[in-house]
Amino acid sequence: MNLEEKVIALKEHQKKLKAYTHVSSLLFYDASTSMPPGAAQSMSDTMGVISGEIYSLTVNPEFKALLNDLYEQREALDFQTRREVEELHLEQEKMEKVPKEEVVAMEEAENLANHYWEIAKKTNDFSIFAPHLEKLIEMKKRYAGYINPDGDVYDTLMNEYERGMNRAQMDPFFDALRKKLVPLIKSVGEAKQPDTSFLAGPFAIDAQKALSEYVMDVMDIDKDRCILRETEHPFTIEFSKNDVRITTKYVEDDLTSNLYSVVHESGHGMYELSIDDALQFSVLGAGATTAIHESQSRLWENYIGRSLPFCKLIFPKVKELFPDQMEGVSAEDFFRAVNVAKPSLIRTDADELTYALHVMVRYELEKRIFEGDLTVSELPAEWNRLYKEYLGIDVPDDTRGVLQDAHWAGGAFGYFPSYALGTAYSAQIYDALRAEVDVDACCEKGDFAPVRQWLTEKIYRHGMLYTADELIEMTCGKPFDPAYYVDYLEEKFSRLYHL
Amino acid sequence: MNLEEKVIALKEHQKKLKAYTHVSSLLFYDASTSMPPGAAQSMSDTMGVISGEIYSLTVNPEFKALLNDLYEQREALDFQTRREVEELHLEQEKMEKVPKEEVVAMEEAENLANHYWEIAKKTNDFSIFAPHLEKLIEMKKRYAGYINPDGDVYDTLMNEYERGMNRAQMDPFFDALRKKLVPLIKSVGEAKQPDTSFLAGPFAIDAQKALSEYVMDVMDIDKDRCILRETEHPFTIEFSKNDVRITTKYVEDDLTSNLYSVVHESGHGMYELSIDDALQFSVLGAGATTAIHESQSRLWENYIGRSLPFCKLIFPKVKELFPDQMEGVSAEDFFRAVNVAKPSLIRTDADELTYALHVMVRYELEKRIFEGDLTVSELPAEWNRLYKEYLGIDVPDDTRGVLQDAHWAGGAFGYFPSYALGTAYSAQIYDALRAEVDVDACCEKGDFAPVRQWLTEKIYRHGMLYTADELIEMTCGKPFDPAYYVDYLEEKFSRLYHL
Repeated sequence: MNLEEKVIALKEHQKKLKAYTHVSSLLFYDASTSMPPGAAQSMSDTMGVISGEIYSLTVNPEFKALLNDLYEQREALDFQTRREVEELHLEQEKMEKVPKEEVVAMEEAENLANHYWEIAKKTNDFSIFAPHLEKLIEMKKRYAGYINPDGDVYDTLMNEYERGMNRAQMDPFFDALRKKLVPLIKSVGEAKQPDTSFLAGPFAIDAQKALSEYVMDVMDIDKDRCILRETEHPFTIEFSKNDVRITTKYVEDDLTSNLYSVVHESGHGMYELSIDDALQFSVLGAGATTAIHESQSRLWENYIGRSLPFCKLIFPKVKELFPDQMEGVSAEDFFRAVNVAKPSLIRTDADELTYALHVMVRYELEKRIFEGDLTVSELPAEWNRLYKEYLGIDVPDDTRGVLQDAHWAGGAFGYFPSYALGTAYSAQIYDALRAEVDVDACCEKGDFAPVRQWLTEKIYRHGMLYTADELIEMTCGKPFDPAYYVDYLEEKFSRLYHL
Repeated sequence: MNLEEKVIALKEHQKKLKAYTHVSSLLFYDASTSMPPGAAQSMSDTMGVISGEIYSLTVNPEFKALLNDLYEQREALDFQTRREVEELHLEQEKMEKVPKEEVVAMEEAENLANHYWEIAKKTNDFSIFAPHLEKLIEMKKRYAGYINPDGDVYDTLMNEYERGMNRAQMDPFFDALRKKLVPLIKSVGEAKQPDTSFLAGPFAIDAQKALSEYVMDVMDIDKDRCILRETEHPFTIEFSKNDVRITTKYVEDDLTSNLYSVVHESGHGMYELSIDDALQFSVLGAGATTAIHESQSRLWENYIGRSLPFCKLIFPKVKELFPDQMEGVSAEDFFRAVNVAKPSLIRTDADELTYALHVMVRYELEKRIFEGDLTVSELPAEWNRLYKEYLGIDVPDDTRGVLQDAHWAGGAFGYFPSYALGTAYSAQIYDALRAEVDVDACCEKGDFAPVRQWLTEKIYRHGMLYTADELIEMTCGKPFDPAYYVDYLEEKFSRLYHL
């Protein structure tokens, strides 16, 4: 094969890979939105076979030879193809470093740990989960050793979710956050609180559904290629750029839960819907990184969605759908209520201001566990101590404490920091956006085309062509700087609470 | 490898095949129940890749050698394994006879034909569809020639859907039907018609949904393993015996459309839910044939579901959900109304009595097309002539005539007769069932466990272990006899219409 033929073979391989990714994403989506409960085992059987097929596709000798050839000649390739080769090469190298038995054993241990975590959470008994957590931690240490024998374990694990993320970057980031946010949250807690009584409902589910569709229309989400379904834990998943699924959850006594889930997931969705056609069958046809993806959902949810102009835009519809609940309430009242900041126990319910501190607790604990400074048995007490120190609240039980998240039970250590990083990216991107686009005017007109065009031009269309650092530099004209995030929060909440 | 190892390899192969079948069924299901409209192309891309993978699994040389070895030694295998080997061998032989290019070309032609059929149906213009239909017919003739060079073309095509089905069997079957049913339908049409005004609605969709769930409970469908969703054309699909999906369609001014769809699809579902665990990862773990499957849905829909005792059982719930519409209506009135027989234009809306004649029209036309006695351009006029002759009605346009069904556009020639055969099987099975189980008593008690147990024992559990002929013989103690069907219809409708 000459170089041209090799490139064609590479593209064919990616097309096949894309089909398998479609299929495994669809299995996950089906399990979350439709599957009858008794089908879990057969779903898992099929998922196992498909994972094995994806593994074989990546590590088979024929493809390995092709990829190595192309990797050596990568300077001769066009930019997109070179990036594809780099991504695939990295993935293949990593897969080959970890013995297949270890991968299978880890998947089994994660399934088991998840099962016992569910029981532990339900019965508020950490000891049921503890031995499985210990085993997973040992396995993840071993796994990091395979991938990166000379590297730091926790850095290696964070890299699984956000390439380039490490403690050298995250420590000062979280330090800065802590120094500013802990006192700010304290002042906010002592200030006069806004009225939120009208957000207590009940809100009829059918009317909430109408609000979801309205919000998607306001954001100009292309419903020909994107649909909304219900799940327990909202998420976005894409099968192709022309098939994006967003999900939400309806709660009768909480209007904002669904409302801001839809705005958040539509942010994720808009990203996927706007990736260049040229990347459609490429491994690069997806959001750049976990944190960059989160920056787009948070940008829409908090920076735009919780702004006064956006609240003014959507409030007439809210009032039309819930006239009794919104009797005597103004758009400004609504804006203040959806921005209430109050330390709480559960991360996923946290407001914009306190959210990062929830993540910080997890970051510190993970770091110390993988540094060997903290044992699993010490984890619950340390969790509670940090919640008191950072958020000023007492954790009443492990169910609402150390057992609240599914991440550790699924072996996802090093994932949490990308949430905070993503939110911090948003602040800097939002600043750059506002310098070029009149976002408030878009809210007033109810036309977000200029915002979407700017984001598409700067971020969306590129898919995974660039790293997170490159994208931030290209979009904002300078490297990532967490000061934007801290300044944004300080300014917004000082104004809201008249500090 | 010794024989034992070969058998293990065979079972592993089937497990993989089962996962791929799960995946391709899920793609189809997702396209029918969820997928956004703009995603059709990416769905089709993925489907193409997965079909190719299934093809490769079946025809790869390593598996071929294994299967040939096992086929030669099949007498030494246990019954189930021997049947698995036979099925796989047959499938492989068939696949190898047809050149892959031909399969791909046929799929493409079917996609195209389907597209133009939709336009033709929408615009009532048969000429848009005609050239594509002609091309498909030529391709199917060629296909039959590959599969069975010395056989009859139409017999070969029918065999694709129902093994063993042929004109020698179907001609006398349809002759007998025509002779009895055409005059019976005429007499029914001249008799006094029951009142059906209370079935005109409107019936609130939410209440109809409650009725669906109630009916599934009455039939004791295991909702832990089977769920109901909505589609344009109701169907049942199974991903495993623990993951069965049934679908329905809600129409506001038609109560019975959804009601009997749910009963019908629950019949299909109950079959899949009751197949032996031993067949779970086997190619035999599915309903025996298309017609046997249809016999089970029709048994529940018509023979049980449209009986007076069943109507008496469910009518209190109908009355509770629709008190205004059912004011002054008795269970007997309801029974008479859901059994109204009236020649109509559309097969899928046809009643129990006239249904088989709709199928007969298609059978005759298909037969003559593949015998070369009928051209595509003569098809519409001939369709209309037969509807007049058999059903006594005038076809006003091709949209409600020759263009009504999707089957031909999808290349499914020879499929229709299995619908009529399945319904005829039901009659004979129902007769055998009633000889051993007091079905009326089950309706009175609202407990169908004895019926399900009997059907499981005789049919469901066996999956594809036996042929249709063997199953009928085992269940009824004699070979298939269409007289049961004709007698049943004659007796039921003579009584209903006091003939």
